[in-house]
Amino acid sequence: MTRNIDLDSHDSSDKNYSRNSQKILNKFNVSLGYEVKIVTKKAEFFGIILPRYETFSDKYIVLKLKSGYNIGIEIENIIEIISKNVDQLSKKPIAKSDPRDNATANDDNNSRNLFDKRNGSKLLPKILLISTGGTIASKIDYRTGGVTSLLSASELYSAFPELSDYGYIYPEFLFNEYSENMNPNHWSALADRISFAIRNEHYDGIIVSHGTDTMHYTSSALSFALQNVPIPVVLVGSQRSSDRPSSDAFSNLVGAIRFIKDTKHSGIFVCMHHNTSDEVIACHLGTRVRKNHTSKRDAFKSLDAMPFALIENSDITYNKLLHNGMERANISKNFTSKTAFSDKVFLLKFYPGFSSSFLENFLQMDYKVIILEGTGLGHVSKDCFPILEKLIEAGIFVFMTSQCIFGTVRMTVYDTGRDLLALGVIPLSNMSSETAVVKAMWALGNNTGAEDFVRIMKTDCSSEISNMLPLV
Amino acid sequence: MTRNIDLDSHDSSDKNYSRNSQKILNKFNVSLGYEVKIVTKKAEFFGIILPRYETFSDKYIVLKLKSGYNIGIEIENIIEIISKNVDQLSKKPIAKSDPRDNATANDDNNSRNLFDKRNGSKLLPKILLISTGGTIASKIDYRTGGVTSLLSASELYSAFPELSDYGYIYPEFLFNEYSENMNPNHWSALADRISFAIRNEHYDGIIVSHGTDTMHYTSSALSFALQNVPIPVVLVGSQRSSDRPSSDAFSNLVGAIRFIKDTKHSGIFVCMHHNTSDEVIACHLGTRVRKNHTSKRDAFKSLDAMPFALIENSDITYNKLLHNGMERANISKNFTSKTAFSDKVFLLKFYPGFSSSFLENFLQMDYKVIILEGTGLGHVSKDCFPILEKLIEAGIFVFMTSQCIFGTVRMTVYDTGRDLLALGVIPLSNMSSETAVVKAMWALGNNTGAEDFVRIMKTDCSSEISNMLPLV
Repeated sequence: MTRNIDLDSHDSSDKNYSRNSQKILNKFNVSLGYEVKIVTKKAEFFGIILPRYETFSDKYIVLKLKSGYNIGIEIENIIEIISKNVDQLSKKPIAKSDPRDNATANDDNNSRNLFDKRNGSKLLPKILLISTGGTIASKIDYRTGGVTSLLSASELYSAFPELSDYGYIYPEFLFNEYSENMNPNHWSALADRISFAIRNEHYDGIIVSHGTDTMHYTSSALSFALQNVPIPVVLVGSQRSSDRPSSDAFSNLVGAIRFIKDTKHSGIFVCMHHNTSDEVIACHLGTRVRKNHTSKRDAFKSLDAMPFALIENSDITYNKLLHNGMERANISKNFTSKTAFSDKVFLLKFYPGFSSSFLENFLQMDYKVIILEGTGLGHVSKDCFPILEKLIEAGIFVFMTSQCIFGTVRMTVYDTGRDLLALGVIPLSNMSSETAVVKAMWALGNNTGAEDFVRIMKTDCSSEISNMLPLV
Repeated sequence: MTRNIDLDSHDSSDKNYSRNSQKILNKFNVSLGYEVKIVTKKAEFFGIILPRYETFSDKYIVLKLKSGYNIGIEIENIIEIISKNVDQLSKKPIAKSDPRDNATANDDNNSRNLFDKRNGSKLLPKILLISTGGTIASKIDYRTGGVTSLLSASELYSAFPELSDYGYIYPEFLFNEYSENMNPNHWSALADRISFAIRNEHYDGIIVSHGTDTMHYTSSALSFALQNVPIPVVLVGSQRSSDRPSSDAFSNLVGAIRFIKDTKHSGIFVCMHHNTSDEVIACHLGTRVRKNHTSKRDAFKSLDAMPFALIENSDITYNKLLHNGMERANISKNFTSKTAFSDKVFLLKFYPGFSSSFLENFLQMDYKVIILEGTGLGHVSKDCFPILEKLIEAGIFVFMTSQCIFGTVRMTVYDTGRDLLALGVIPLSNMSSETAVVKAMWALGNNTGAEDFVRIMKTDCSSEISNMLPLV
C-alpha cells in the first residue's frame, strides 16, 4: 500500500507551442503567460498568451482577453507582438501587498481574525490560495495537452487579474495532482499546511483549488482533521478549464472570496455553481456535499439540505438551519488538528448477485473497517449475514450507509435491518458513504481505541450527520 | 455462490393478533382479511381486518376502511363483528372476470395484443399482477410484524377493491422476498414467468409488485432478458406499506394500470411517484431509473432525462424523445427472451485511499467482469494502472462507470481516462453502474463469446445508453 505524492511534475517548458507558433513567439521574445499586444492586419488584441489547445491547429496563438474570453489569432496575420508589462510576468506570486502586512505581527492573539476588526471598513480579505491541481488550476485543460507548466496558484491568479479587485490573494503551490490520485497522504499534507497557516499566518480565509473528482472526499477529510477552524476554508474547483469562455473557475473563485469577505462563519466549505448560470454560487458544508454529475457546472449538491449559503453577486443568503456553533468568534480557541489518516478502510457497494463468499477475503486481509453501501434504508441480502457475523467477531468494524445517496439509513424499520443490527453492523444515519469512508480513515488514523472509535463514528463531529435537517 | 429462492415463507397465521385482540376475533369467528362490519357503542365501521401494527397496543383491531384509510378500533368498545361476505375472502384470486375470456382463445396470432382491437371501446385492460414481495405487497409493513400471510397479489387486490374500477386484474403470487434478497435467480424466474405469459396468455399488460430497494436492478434485468416485449411490463413498488394512510401503493398501482390502458408503447417500465404529491406518477424506462432516496415517495428518478411518461389522473404526457421503436405493433413479432444471468460480475466502487493491491485478489477469484465505479468522467488513481493491466491480460473484462450517477463517462478528456483506455478499460457511456452490473451478468449468462460480449456491452440494447438524450 505504498503511495507517493508527486511534486516533480511541474514543468515550465512551452512545449505545447511548436514549429510555427513557437517560432513567432521566439521572434518577438515572448512566451506563455506574457501580457502582450498582438497587432494583426485588421486589429490589435490585448491579453495574456495561453497554451495552445491540443486540438488547435499549430497556426494559431491563443490569447486570453481582458473580457475573460480567449481567441485564437492566426499566425500569418500577426504583424507584431509587443510585450506590455514584463514585471507582471515574473515567476513570483503577484499578489498586491496588503497594507496590513506593515502592521506589527501578532500584536494580539486575535490578529489572525481580521474580519472582526474591520467592521465597516473597506479592507479586502487576505486570503491564502493553495493550489493542489485539477481543472481549475489549468489555463488550458492541462490533462489534454500536457500543460503542467502553468498550474500554480500564482499562475491561476495571473490568469484572472480581476481577482485582485476582490481580495489580497497569496497564492501557493502545494501539489499538482489530478484529484483521482489524491489519497490520505495528500489530505494530511494539505491539512498540515492549513493548520500551520491558521496557527502562524494571518489570513481571513483560505481557498484550496482542487480537482472536482474527489473534492468532496477532501472536504470531508479537512472537516475531520481540522475542527473548529477559526476562519473559513473553502475548496473551489472547476468543471471547465479556466481558459475556456465557459469556465466556471472565475465565478467559483470570486464566490469563495466574497463568502470569506462577508461571512461571520468559519468551517470547511465547498464553493461551486448552484445552477447552470454563473449568477449563483453555492457554498456547501464540507461533509455534506457530493459530485452528482460528471460534467455539469452545478455538479456538486448538498445532501439532504439546501447549501450552507448561496452567493449571488454581493448578496449572501444563509441557510439558517445550518449555523449552529459556527460563528467565528466562538470557536477559534478550540481549534484542533488531527491530520493522520489510516488506509485500513474498505468501501463495499452491495448489489443483487453479490456473492457473500467474497466477504471471506476480508478475514485474510488487513482491513479494520468495512463501510457497506447497502440498499434502501441500509440492507444487504440475508446470505451475507453469517459471514458478516464472522468478520465482526474477528474484530472488523462494519458500518452501513445507503447507495440511495439521499436520505437516512434506518435499520429498525425492517427485519433485514434489525438482523444486521443484531449482528453488530452499525448504521451511520445520513452520512454519505464517501464521507463515512473518510471519517473512518481519520478516526482510525488518530489512534482511537475500539470503544472510542465506534462512539466517534456514530456521533456528529462536523455536520456529517444531520438528521435534524429538513429535507429539500 | 449458492443462492436460493425461498418460496416457503408464506405463513397464514394471525400471530400478530394476540391475547385480547385475538380473543375477540375468535369470538366472532373472523380473521385477518375478513370484510366485516364492526359495531361499537358509538358507530358502525365497514372494512377489512388488517394485521395489527407491531407498535400498536393489543387493545385495538385495525380496520381498513373503504376510503383507503385505516382505523384502530378499541376492543372494549366493540359490541359485535359481523362477517359481511365470506365469498370475497376465499384464498383464490378475486378478479372480476373479463367478458373477453369467453371469446375463442388464440383466434389469431395478435389476440394477445387486445389494446389495438378495442380502439374507442370502453373495455378495461386485462392485467397480470405478479407479486414478488416488498412493502407494496404488505397490508401492514410485514417486515416489522412478521406479517407474511397477506402478501400475495390477490390479497393486495383485495386490500384495494377500487382497483377493479381500472382494470381486470389477475393476481398471482410468484415469491415473497425482500428486494435486497432478490438475486439473478429471481430475475430469471420472473422473466420466465413473464415470457410465458406473453407467449401463452392474453394480457394487455403485466404489473410486477416489487420491493423498492433493488427494483431498478430488476427492471434492468427484465429489460435485457425480455427484449421487444409486445406489451407494457410495469414494476411498481411502494415506499409506505399499503395499509398506511400515507401509502403510495394505490396511486402507483393505478398509475401503472392507467399507463397500460392508454399507452401505445411497450417495454419494461417502473411506475412510482413523480413528486411528493399523489397527483403525478412517473413512468421510467427500466434501464434508466434509480432509487435516489432512502424513504421519500418520489425516490425513483430517471437518469439524464425526464421520465418516459408522466401520468396525472387520466392524462398521460409522453417524453417524445424516448419513444423510438417502442410502438407495440412494430415489435411484437421480434420478442426474444434470454433469461439466464451469470454471477461472475463484481461491482467495485473506487475511493481515495483505495489500495490498488486489493485488485490482486481478482487474479485468484472466478470473476469474469469488474464494473469499476470510478470518479468524475471515469477515473481511478494511477497506482491502479499496473494491476488493472494484469487483470485485463488475465482475461478479466474491466468496464468503467461513474459514481457521479448523473452524466456520461468520457475517458478521452483527461490523461487518466486515456491511460485507462490504453490499458483496455472499456467506458460504458451514461449507463448507471447498477444497470451495467446487470447487463454484464445477462450478457455473460447467455453464453456470449468474448468479442460479442464487449460489443453487446458497448451497444445500446434497451435504452441503457442514452447519450443522445437531452440533460434535464
